[in-house]
Amino acid sequence: MTFRDDGYAAIDWAARSLETVGELPVLAQVEPGELSAKLPASPPEEAEPFAAVLRDMDELILPAMTHWQHPRFFAYFAVTASEPGILGELLAAATNQVALHWRASPASTELELRVVDWVRQLLGLPDGWHGHIEDTASTSTLAALIAARHVTGRNVVVCSEHAHSSVEKGARMLGMELRKQPAVELAMTTDFPLDDVACVVATVGTTSFASVDPVRELAARAHAAGAWLHVDAAYAGSAWICEEERWSQDGVELADSLVVNPHKWLMLPMDCSLLWTSRPDEFREAFSLVPEYLRTPEDVYALSEYGPALGRRFRSLKLWAVLRCYGAEQLRAVQREHIRLARVFARLVEDDPGWELVAPQRLSLVVFRKNVSDEENEQLVERANRSGEIFLSHTKLDGRYVIRLAVGNTRTTEADIHQAWEVLNR
Amino acid sequence: MTFRDDGYAAIDWAARSLETVGELPVLAQVEPGELSAKLPASPPEEAEPFAAVLRDMDELILPAMTHWQHPRFFAYFAVTASEPGILGELLAAATNQVALHWRASPASTELELRVVDWVRQLLGLPDGWHGHIEDTASTSTLAALIAARHVTGRNVVVCSEHAHSSVEKGARMLGMELRKQPAVELAMTTDFPLDDVACVVATVGTTSFASVDPVRELAARAHAAGAWLHVDAAYAGSAWICEEERWSQDGVELADSLVVNPHKWLMLPMDCSLLWTSRPDEFREAFSLVPEYLRTPEDVYALSEYGPALGRRFRSLKLWAVLRCYGAEQLRAVQREHIRLARVFARLVEDDPGWELVAPQRLSLVVFRKNVSDEENEQLVERANRSGEIFLSHTKLDGRYVIRLAVGNTRTTEADIHQAWEVLNR
Repeated sequence: MTFRDDGYAAIDWAARSLETVGELPVLAQVEPGELSAKLPASPPEEAEPFAAVLRDMDELILPAMTHWQHPRFFAYFAVTASEPGILGELLAAATNQVALHWRASPASTELELRVVDWVRQLLGLPDGWHGHIEDTASTSTLAALIAARHVTGRNVVVCSEHAHSSVEKGARMLGMELRKQPAVELAMTTDFPLDDVACVVATVGTTSFASVDPVRELAARAHAAGAWLHVDAAYAGSAWICEEERWSQDGVELADSLVVNPHKWLMLPMDCSLLWTSRPDEFREAFSLVPEYLRTPEDVYALSEYGPALGRRFRSLKLWAVLRCYGAEQLRAVQREHIRLARVFARLVEDDPGWELVAPQRLSLVVFRKNVSDEENEQLVERANRSGEIFLSHTKLDGRYVIRLAVGNTRTTEADIHQAWEVLNR
Repeated sequence: MTFRDDGYAAIDWAARSLETVGELPVLAQVEPGELSAKLPASPPEEAEPFAAVLRDMDELILPAMTHWQHPRFFAYFAVTASEPGILGELLAAATNQVALHWRASPASTELELRVVDWVRQLLGLPDGWHGHIEDTASTSTLAALIAARHVTGRNVVVCSEHAHSSVEKGARMLGMELRKQPAVELAMTTDFPLDDVACVVATVGTTSFASVDPVRELAARAHAAGAWLHVDAAYAGSAWICEEERWSQDGVELADSLVVNPHKWLMLPMDCSLLWTSRPDEFREAFSLVPEYLRTPEDVYALSEYGPALGRRFRSLKLWAVLRCYGAEQLRAVQREHIRLARVFARLVEDDPGWELVAPQRLSLVVFRKNVSDEENEQLVERANRSGEIFLSHTKLDGRYVIRLAVGNTRTTEADIHQAWEVLNR
């Protein structure tokens, strides 16, 4: 077989998988260890055809996948790896650019700067911010904490009790002290001492509730005290492409750094996390280290000088492909439809006295519970998930078990929303 | 256009690019800013067909790429993104598994554990080591330093003056003190105090010279003093699939953690860095943090508990595809051919009194210089690189400019080696 034939077969496999994913159980119907037991214990000594891999994709891998591309995947933040994003990833792998610095891939370096700036414009962020691509928000936030400590010489991080776990994990990895600030009505309170604070992390669109911290006030207080303000808008920030969602951007223009993940809600496959800073020189100082074997005659900064990793994939290709093949119009249309579908579900909950919304519906996330015990809510979710018809996740609010339904797949229709409600009420 | 048609066109683009890459200049023949000037300043409002992206791949991106897939790419560590690896990446993007934990992708979690264990077996590493995939060696080493500090409660890192810059960068990001130890005959000396040392980093196959530190002695000293031993074999470790190269593995069985990068020399596209630890429980303790919204009923550890990032791509697919479509036999054959080609080049250097080898030829790397001034060597490399015929990189040894030629592409032939020599002597 040639690469062309194998490649067409892989495209056919991917196409069929995207066409039929809605007919499969969302949650993998396997027990821990079930796939392992079917995989050979040792690697093959002799070559096998690629067709054997595709056969095993069907027989072994597919049944053990939880289908993130499924229209009724409503857990965590639901996402879409769109067709142009998938093909962008293919081209990145085929060209295998490793952008250690400009010379190692002028294309990757310059395309990345340009398309990240395109997203900056689409989101209405300030001119002049420096943006680049990291793998995930965990890394972007880690990088922001590193920069904050470098710039301030301090060692304390403050965030909301509802901030993403990556803030706590980042602080722990770095040996920084974390102070979790209580929230009132899901928004971080601002009455904390700041003398020894390196970084205040404000969240726009918390993972649990899509709630929004008072960024403007946090920025003002942080800056008055010489601290760095990092804004985590990993999920919600993508929605700023819609003018009507920019209310949550208030104060973000004051941020020292900002993370937004196109792999969450701009139809990109994993991984693509955008990290902007309004203080690029100081940011770079925290990371820049150019050993002799990486020196080149060109007077251009490497994007690896703005984050932890040296080797960098050609991630901008897939972002470029998606921005062009959707166009801003269609991206907005997709998000508006997701928000509308979430509203449909929220109304079903509100209109039924047996259920309640536990947080205001924000963007494409609905947080709710049935008016029964925590245990019963938990069992209900587990039954629904194990059915394979829908996949939901949960969180806790004031110690109570609450259910999350997030809309984010381009295949999701209103019928899917009604089916979710029907399954929960069955 | 449908996804199938666009996909076939993308496969055709990739196939043609792999077939013809050897006819292109290796080093991008563009000036800084040249691509940027051709890219639209703002994103499109309306959708474009994917064919427009492919057209611009030819017209804009291709001329601005330094061709890592080129048979005469001899810089840094030369690599190959093989066909099954490329298609594995395509399948990963299409299925878009985000392995936050087992439930979110049983397939990704269990396949990753299995195929990383396959590599462990191929490399002859100890039973029972826990391995997982990180993006790059920078991240793997960062994770090792975090684990070392967590376990020892100490804050000092010791490595060779020839260790990779990621060790220094990692220590700096973490706020750890780095002590660089001098090397004798390119190998790290071992007479350093250890009382306050968290982590000793030993390198097997340094970036500059492919030299090997005395791992067994470093391990013994580190462990006697309660320090962690991390081994960076990012490049050279892949060669342990060949029995005759296992001399450099001496003492590695004593490591607390080890990084080997299949994207360097096991024909994987970026990114795939394997991180093993012989102390998995302590390693996990340094990173594990499971917030409520990620709790699941299954009693299985998440691979995100062994490293910095939470979201994890389905990287094991491409590793699985390459291990199967090559088979161990062919992987060994490819490496042996690369080592043989490096030897051919080393002999050309040795046999010419106008040139000298400045380090013993190890694996597929030759380090050499012409018997002229540093400036003349530097100009010679720059002329060769700008010619587009070959691409080399350099380093310094004892303050002298020295040239590196690394073989790592499956398309490289003996004719390419002779052409490199001819270009340098022209």
